[in-house]
Amino acid sequence: MKPNEGEMTLELEVLKWDGAGLIPAVVQDAAGEVLMVAYMNREALTETLSTGFGTYYSRSRREMWRKGETSSHRQKVLELRLDCDLDCVLLRVEQLGGACHTGHYSCFYRKVEDGKLVFTA
Amino acid sequence: MKPNEGEMTLELEVLKWDGAGLIPAVVQDAAGEVLMVAYMNREALTETLSTGFGTYYSRSRREMWRKGETSSHRQKVLELRLDCDLDCVLLRVEQLGGACHTGHYSCFYRKVEDGKLVFTA
Repeated sequence: MKPNEGEMTLELEVLKWDGAGLIPAVVQDAAGEVLMVAYMNREALTETLSTGFGTYYSRSRREMWRKGETSSHRQKVLELRLDCDLDCVLLRVEQLGGACHTGHYSCFYRKVEDGKLVFTA
Repeated sequence: MKPNEGEMTLELEVLKWDGAGLIPAVVQDAAGEVLMVAYMNREALTETLSTGFGTYYSRSRREMWRKGETSSHRQKVLELRLDCDLDCVLLRVEQLGGACHTGHYSCFYRKVEDGKLVFTA
């Protein structure tokens, strides 16, 4: 494949927003650790791209969620990818502090082992 | 925190299934590369845990999706995690072949750069 084959200008409307106007966003750090999954609306994606910091839409609070606005645990975006179906975003970020509201670095701090949910180191 | 503090038996009903009975599942390989995001229903999660291979629910085909059943690109599960809110699954897998139906190893083969959607190496 030639380097720029299929290159296209990103238009918000090419993304497959769900019925609520949202798209899931997976967030991982530079080392590959998955930190969290959140949701973006058009405004959040636009703001993430323009500011360079992870911005989401909080489904529970029903408002824009500028990650780290109150905790200072911001996410500096290193790269933003889209999947084949254009229905999911992948962010690679530099995570300041922890990503999880529980204080853990990653929200995925529990694993399933022998039918039990156990804390990881 | 003591090693087993908060350890609990995993009951399917503690997970926060959405209105359609689904939960998103992020799939990454052992090196941390995110391969795809799919959805699981209770049956798919149960089957993933019992067989050790990534099994999902296809929203488009409205049926169980035993990843690799036709392509042989199966996903051997190395670890299964849950997030803080119990509304998302994270699988670490050994990916046989490519994860994406387009033939790419990962579904996230395009990144956004200067407002354009470009193929990654």
